[in-house]
Amino acid sequence: MNQEHLRNLLQQVAAGQLEVEAALVELKGLPFEDLGYAKVDHHRSLRTGFPETVFCENKTTEQIVGIVQAMRGKSPVILATRASPDIYQAIGEIAPEAVYHDQARIVQLGQPADSDKCLAQCLVITGGTSDIPVAEEAAVTVAAAGCPVQRLYDVGVAGLHRLLDHREALQEAAVLVVVAGMEGALASVVGGLVDKPVIAVPTSVGYGASFGGLSALLTMLNSCATGVAVVNIDNGFGAGCFAALLCQNWRQPRP
Amino acid sequence: MNQEHLRNLLQQVAAGQLEVEAALVELKGLPFEDLGYAKVDHHRSLRTGFPETVFCENKTTEQIVGIVQAMRGKSPVILATRASPDIYQAIGEIAPEAVYHDQARIVQLGQPADSDKCLAQCLVITGGTSDIPVAEEAAVTVAAAGCPVQRLYDVGVAGLHRLLDHREALQEAAVLVVVAGMEGALASVVGGLVDKPVIAVPTSVGYGASFGGLSALLTMLNSCATGVAVVNIDNGFGAGCFAALLCQNWRQPRP
Amino acid sequence: MNQEHLRNLLQQVAAGQLEVEAALVELKGLPFEDLGYAKVDHHRSLRTGFPETVFCENKTTEQIVGIVQAMRGKSPVILATRASPDIYQAIGEIAPEAVYHDQARIVQLGQPADSDKCLAQCLVITGGTSDIPVAEEAAVTVAAAGCPVQRLYDVGVAGLHRLLDHREALQEAAVLVVVAGMEGALASVVGGLVDKPVIAVPTSVGYGASFGGLSALLTMLNSCATGVAVVNIDNGFGAGCFAALLCQNWRQPRP
Amino acid sequence: MNQEHLRNLLQQVAAGQLEVEAALVELKGLPFEDLGYAKVDHHRSLRTGFPETVFCENKTTEQIVGIVQAMRGKSPVILATRASPDIYQAIGEIAPEAVYHDQARIVQLGQPADSDKCLAQCLVITGGTSDIPVAEEAAVTVAAAGCPVQRLYDVGVAGLHRLLDHREALQEAAVLVVVAGMEGALASVVGGLVDKPVIAVPTSVGYGASFGGLSALLTMLNSCATGVAVVNIDNGFGAGCFAALLCQNWRQPRP
Amino acid sequence: MNQEHLRNLLQQVAAGQLEVEAALVELKGLPFEDLGYAKVDHHRSLRTGFPETVFCENKTTEQIVGIVQAMRGKSPVILATRASPDIYQAIGEIAPEAVYHDQARIVQLGQPADSDKCLAQCLVITGGTSDIPVAEEAAVTVAAAGCPVQRLYDVGVAGLHRLLDHREALQEAAVLVVVAGMEGALASVVGGLVDKPVIAVPTSVGYGASFGGLSALLTMLNSCATGVAVVNIDNGFGAGCFAALLCQNWRQPRP
Amino acid sequence: MNQEHLRNLLQQVAAGQLEVEAALVELKGLPFEDLGYAKVDHHRSLRTGFPETVFCENKTTEQIVGIVQAMRGKSPVILATRASPDIYQAIGEIAPEAVYHDQARIVQLGQPADSDKCLAQCLVITGGTSDIPVAEEAAVTVAAAGCPVQRLYDVGVAGLHRLLDHREALQEAAVLVVVAGMEGALASVVGGLVDKPVIAVPTSVGYGASFGGLSALLTMLNSCATGVAVVNIDNGFGAGCFAALLCQNWRQPRP
Amino acid sequence: MNQEHLRNLLQQVAAGQLEVEAALVELKGLPFEDLGYAKVDHHRSLRTGFPETVFCENKTTEQIVGIVQAMRGKSPVILATRASPDIYQAIGEIAPEAVYHDQARIVQLGQPADSDKCLAQCLVITGGTSDIPVAEEAAVTVAAAGCPVQRLYDVGVAGLHRLLDHREALQEAAVLVVVAGMEGALASVVGGLVDKPVIAVPTSVGYGASFGGLSALLTMLNSCATGVAVVNIDNGFGAGCFAALLCQNWRQPRP
Amino acid sequence: MNQEHLRNLLQQVAAGQLEVEAALVELKGLPFEDLGYAKVDHHRSLRTGFPETVFCENKTTEQIVGIVQAMRGKSPVILATRASPDIYQAIGEIAPEAVYHDQARIVQLGQPADSDKCLAQCLVITGGTSDIPVAEEAAVTVAAAGCPVQRLYDVGVAGLHRLLDHREALQEAAVLVVVAGMEGALASVVGGLVDKPVIAVPTSVGYGASFGGLSALLTMLNSCATGVAVVNIDNGFGAGCFAALLCQNWRQPRP
Repeated sequence: MNQEHLRNLLQQVAAGQLEVEAALVELKGLPFEDLGYAKVDHHRSLRTGFPETVFCENKTTEQIVGIVQAMRGKSPVILATRASPDIYQAIGEIAPEAVYHDQARIVQLGQPADSDKCLAQCLVITGGTSDIPVAEEAAVTVAAAGCPVQRLYDVGVAGLHRLLDHREALQEAAVLVVVAGMEGALASVVGGLVDKPVIAVPTSVGYGASFGGLSALLTMLNSCATGVAVVNIDNGFGAGCFAALLCQNWRQPRP
Repeated sequence: MNQEHLRNLLQQVAAGQLEVEAALVELKGLPFEDLGYAKVDHHRSLRTGFPETVFCENKTTEQIVGIVQAMRGKSPVILATRASPDIYQAIGEIAPEAVYHDQARIVQLGQPADSDKCLAQCLVITGGTSDIPVAEEAAVTVAAAGCPVQRLYDVGVAGLHRLLDHREALQEAAVLVVVAGMEGALASVVGGLVDKPVIAVPTSVGYGASFGGLSALLTMLNSCATGVAVVNIDNGFGAGCFAALLCQNWRQPRP
Repeated sequence: MNQEHLRNLLQQVAAGQLEVEAALVELKGLPFEDLGYAKVDHHRSLRTGFPETVFCENKTTEQIVGIVQAMRGKSPVILATRASPDIYQAIGEIAPEAVYHDQARIVQLGQPADSDKCLAQCLVITGGTSDIPVAEEAAVTVAAAGCPVQRLYDVGVAGLHRLLDHREALQEAAVLVVVAGMEGALASVVGGLVDKPVIAVPTSVGYGASFGGLSALLTMLNSCATGVAVVNIDNGFGAGCFAALLCQNWRQPRP
Repeated sequence: MNQEHLRNLLQQVAAGQLEVEAALVELKGLPFEDLGYAKVDHHRSLRTGFPETVFCENKTTEQIVGIVQAMRGKSPVILATRASPDIYQAIGEIAPEAVYHDQARIVQLGQPADSDKCLAQCLVITGGTSDIPVAEEAAVTVAAAGCPVQRLYDVGVAGLHRLLDHREALQEAAVLVVVAGMEGALASVVGGLVDKPVIAVPTSVGYGASFGGLSALLTMLNSCATGVAVVNIDNGFGAGCFAALLCQNWRQPRP
Repeated sequence: MNQEHLRNLLQQVAAGQLEVEAALVELKGLPFEDLGYAKVDHHRSLRTGFPETVFCENKTTEQIVGIVQAMRGKSPVILATRASPDIYQAIGEIAPEAVYHDQARIVQLGQPADSDKCLAQCLVITGGTSDIPVAEEAAVTVAAAGCPVQRLYDVGVAGLHRLLDHREALQEAAVLVVVAGMEGALASVVGGLVDKPVIAVPTSVGYGASFGGLSALLTMLNSCATGVAVVNIDNGFGAGCFAALLCQNWRQPRP
Repeated sequence: MNQEHLRNLLQQVAAGQLEVEAALVELKGLPFEDLGYAKVDHHRSLRTGFPETVFCENKTTEQIVGIVQAMRGKSPVILATRASPDIYQAIGEIAPEAVYHDQARIVQLGQPADSDKCLAQCLVITGGTSDIPVAEEAAVTVAAAGCPVQRLYDVGVAGLHRLLDHREALQEAAVLVVVAGMEGALASVVGGLVDKPVIAVPTSVGYGASFGGLSALLTMLNSCATGVAVVNIDNGFGAGCFAALLCQNWRQPRP
Repeated sequence: MNQEHLRNLLQQVAAGQLEVEAALVELKGLPFEDLGYAKVDHHRSLRTGFPETVFCENKTTEQIVGIVQAMRGKSPVILATRASPDIYQAIGEIAPEAVYHDQARIVQLGQPADSDKCLAQCLVITGGTSDIPVAEEAAVTVAAAGCPVQRLYDVGVAGLHRLLDHREALQEAAVLVVVAGMEGALASVVGGLVDKPVIAVPTSVGYGASFGGLSALLTMLNSCATGVAVVNIDNGFGAGCFAALLCQNWRQPRP
Repeated sequence: MNQEHLRNLLQQVAAGQLEVEAALVELKGLPFEDLGYAKVDHHRSLRTGFPETVFCENKTTEQIVGIVQAMRGKSPVILATRASPDIYQAIGEIAPEAVYHDQARIVQLGQPADSDKCLAQCLVITGGTSDIPVAEEAAVTVAAAGCPVQRLYDVGVAGLHRLLDHREALQEAAVLVVVAGMEGALASVVGGLVDKPVIAVPTSVGYGASFGGLSALLTMLNSCATGVAVVNIDNGFGAGCFAALLCQNWRQPRP
């Protein structure tokens, strides 16, 4: 609803090409659908070329299915994140094309359009095996946005050679998502090895003084390496969105 | 038990109109009922015109039913908050008129007297779909106190147009209850849009660095908008009480 | 900039009564003044009938004086809060009518208009002597908004009779601001004694496990008394704003 | 094992009344029994006249029964705290005289000896109904140590008259145990009403910003009232021990 | 203002021995003096036989001197705690008898009456040299209340023999105040060695993970030893009050 | 030191074109300079095209000057961040070309090479006037890396129209840096308005429950808007680096 | 992969004794096995003579069995820690020689080689019975590394004589592991009694203000005793590793 | 005071070789000197061969000089840690041989005896230049205990090649002390590179979410690398003591 658009609208009204009430409707008619318990925002997908998403935690299955129903057909790709197998089944009943990424706990409908695909690659790295579910949430999100994604798992800093052995993969990526719990030191180390943006995702993996991911979160926020930014604990989806946004705008040519 | 009352009492004693022991009883006889495990306070309802309430968490079903029994008949409206369906059933056995608001998890007995009704409207807003249970706790409480209540759900700040599209509703309310988890930014934004009191309710909705609602709580306490005050995390009932108190005393005429 | 206003504007454009460019200016011309380092919002005062305010902490004296200069003449009352004597002196040089409330650390310019005055009374209470500066910040703010204010200081719960002796004052107030540090229990006790809204202000007064006001803040948020809402630690100004907003809208007739 | 005892021992050795090895045994022979997984300390009971106690949380039923077995017969009273009904049943199989205080979750064996009984009374107070289990843990502990105990439940500060109505009970007690969750303000209020020691027990009752009892704990630690000391969250047993220790040593004559 | 007193008052009114207005005055006339910024509570001293006290932190020198002035002559002993040398000098100008305990940072006026003296001894113990100021605050408070006090400083658990060498002193005390910062383990160790009440005072002495006394506070709250209760960090005065209260009521005969 | 480089090196050794010891030197000779107290890393600048930087906090002036000396001449641009005027003066003595950005507290030597300049624009936004120093640290860093930077200050969410009035500027930026203290809600609101990456910088501006920036940090981490990533509190430099990295790689053509 | 090794490799290449590609393989061929979800590091065991270990928490049974399979035969001893009985059963199906230490929750395959055995003794101490599982995790780990281990359980500081009675055992150990929850004071006391390294393990045993082990952790970090270092809460395995590392290198002769 | 010693003592008494009172003196006469405000423990130095130490923070200069005076002549080496230049000067007046390590803020008297010297080397590593003061506190302590010490400073993980270039130094050390603030990741990385004990020292270097060293502390406690143990934030002295204890007992031959 920028100034240019507003100017046009006003000019149309001034020229008698548009009725006052019609202009009012357009000004008011923001592209979201009101389900009462949710306002589904079709605009966001149009604006960002990014999949519509419903975050399933703390919603009833009925609400989730209702939201997916409202999104369906209006967006090429729909993601339901933090979805249990039960939710997958419920969505599957109204949308048989739904696919379940079980490690990522994501239900996906549809595939990214060719026009949304990009060449810039995202590399998703984990410190340990237990961080894989969060990493997969990120990787599936990146792929659903049309960006190529590579995975490099269980290369935590306690055995540095496991990471250093894959320097080539590190260098090839345009964007890196680093997923680590416990002490979360991997983001700093990776940030020091590459000259690309690193999106750090602390996980709640750990015990004792990991305090539900607080330790990894603070480590990543305090990273001495430049080029590191952080998202919420266990927020693989947010990291995936941010990474896809960068890949889509990367200087490399689209296919 | 104010000074005027005390003066009267003493004058009656001085005039021989009241026995010392009778005066003693009156001075002692504060209007609460002692169930041993609970002291039911009939006075509060008389004093405030507000429903009697029993908070069910951490009480046994026997205790809850006992307290409702003691309240019944002495107050036009009784609320049992944080009530599971089981508790509803148990109350229903001694009070068939009981109604269950399942999203709000409130059992309600009776309706507000006409004399308690007011015209000033309360608007309950949520940031997301998951915040609805807490919002409903507030809305049911406001309604039970005799105040008109409107609902505006899922208008979080990440899609600002959803909120701005309802500016009219914002302007019509005398009092606003804003319920939000995660980053809790909605209270500040609403506070900046209206010139009415905003009661902010942080919710425990979220994960990771939301730390059980701490994030939303701190956001709301630090609000730069004036006219915002905060209640405890998930305390929809408290927000509803506060809102009703304001509506009942609002400068608009009662019906 | 509500819908009615928009309709009028569009109708004027449609009727040729308003040029497109002029309408554009009006639509853009939001009533704030851009100083570069600050956007002074004259609209807020117009909208809320509340004093313009500049929060002095973390601003340079030059910035503060510049902001006051921009506000002056556009609002009947201007407050500069958290102002040191040096800032008072600097403001005084450009605005000789400035008055300094030293306990409250507020510089005030101008007096509330008669039309903003109200009859509903605000009572400001403190737990101890050390809480007085925060209480005065609230009291001066309430008074600057045109509302009558009473003070009741050093009536903490450890000597309950000091508070109970003033029950009459408690009953007379339409709104109560309770300011307390250390354990902050006063808000709950007052909330249980009155049937009016209580705005609780935790203070950073204390040591050790008061953790800079955290203890009092948590106490107030957990208050079992209904009708209590909380503002930020030491936020006397915010409490004053909220209280004034209630007093101005209280059901009692204005003078 | 004080200096006087040591002098005697040495004199006996010097006089040839005691063999070196025998003295060594006595010096080494501290009165505890080694079960491998536990060192049962019979000495503590002898020294303090206080019941032997086993804290059941985080112990296996086998360990608990083994410890009770080792204690039995060596102490007039044995308490097993934080005991589930299952644990009660298991103890009952080896000790049929065992009694279960279900609210307090304590299994008790035996009764205090007449010589341990005292006249100084302990009053146990709660803020709410939900605090009763912790209060009962304290009350049963005090009684098991031979001290008379009174109960005053659900007299939280939000309805102050419920507490003030029982001032007589407050004055009669030698020692007071105040048990409260949520905002925990009751300890300060009681501490200001009496001139006796108040032992404050924060409870984990609450939600949101009560943070598992942290709020009540901080409130009690910051109490402005003198004569208040605090034990751990939910530590009814510890408060009971401390209270019994004071009652037993109170200046009033024993029976 | 107990029930008996109330009955007498009412009987006098009934008998015409007391005018209504006079009774009203008496009922209202609670024994505190209102300085505006402070309500000086003479009643507390009468009731508890304990020194009047003014806590100097966060008060202006003028306020402190004013409060001391109001107290003077109405209580045998007055203490001004957390008093800087400057405050001592200011008090000395209106009260030449004032004495300054510099380590304890307490200004004392007057000596305890013989009738307040007791025989039961308090032992104040510190873990380190740096804890002495807090310990002295406790010790001076105990002495000002008329109770004999012993000191045992720098006997922390890292050199256990320093403590065990003074077992006799430990056994002789009726009440023990244990003052320790850093890890605060001393309270548990002392609590396990004696069968007397131990009042634990965490101090803010330490660095790093002592977090301003939090570490010592948590240690003391979690003490496995029975007979340990805790006061606020650095609250030597509170510990002294609690200890004196116990000593004064101890079963040993007064002189 | 990637695999291709290693292969070449080995081939040269195999071909006798490189001596073993020379190869060893090259393998060992990583491009940093060892000052003892610091290892200056010339490689990072070569690798990333980014200014060499020295973080001045907690370093002595001697150390800072020594590090700048070692960097000088080896990098087109050198930044000394968190630099006081004294440090500027000391650097100026050895490097007269040094420039001081006083709001940003950055000393800058040299200008970015034309080859490092890019067209993609960065917009730096603040919630309030007090956040400007952190914002300037980001803006100066972005500019020093050769990227165009715009500023939009004091547009916090409490007066939303100030932000919405600049939607055009929001849309024009490739990358946005949002700097806010207090409740930090601005990042979420901006993130919802644009489809570009938002780098959120919490600041320590605030008081009370802002807890040194914790509140803003948690708000930003919990942002419901996608496309938001966070750096450390007050870390304007880190945000500037991350933003410059994105601008330099943005799909828009370089000049 | 140290410098000497590198020199040899290069010399072999220079002498034509090693092909370039073969050298490349060796340089790249770090001794770990890539299972995709895990990179099993055989090198660590070779390097440290320490058992291969898999941490079972947050891994699927399939992943655990896969990792054990990959380790088997390549290391004399394999440990699976935090293993439930179900995991033991699953491992037992592919490795019938597996033994389950149920208190320690460790599955062990194989025995330490004679060449790894050492004489220096480790003593594992607990404060209470509930700390035994963590202590056993440490003790089993130490034994699996070939070091003799003694156990001394339930000797917490509240009954100091239980500890002091075993001074001989304390003196005989080369290394001590102290495991304690609640207040965690035992580490300081033991640290003061011996002149050997003490490895302190806080446990999450406790309730209320133990905050999941935080209290014990802070106590141990703040220990005034020298010679104390700390590992994560409940990290018996880490303490066992550290202890074994010291024992293996102790100055006493190997068998 | 072990069992053997006790047996001898008793045998001497039994044989009439030792008077009862003399034995009593010996049993009581523990080797510490009582200064009132401090109990100087000469025994510790005798027992551990480690320098006597006085921690200067929170002690008066008079106390420090008094303690040094008491220690002097009874121990070959005396350290005063956290000593300002003023304290150095004051000590120098009574002990002209005192030397001041200004970066480490340690005053040292005397040199380690040849018999205390060992060959096992300690390597002290820092992440940054700002961590050097804490590292020097460790290094000076290690040297004062007679152990050889190497330094490797400013090799943080953001520029990993700086560390990897010194692998030889890492391998040569028997014990490593890793000192790092900010994210503290260096300890994990070093722990993964060596098979020797790593003592991790978090520092308070940093800002924002480093929370005074909490971030580095948690990182180090959560280290995935085995062989890492942690001391308090900024506790260079404690790390030095622990390291020296290991070096002195290392399997390598003494000179």
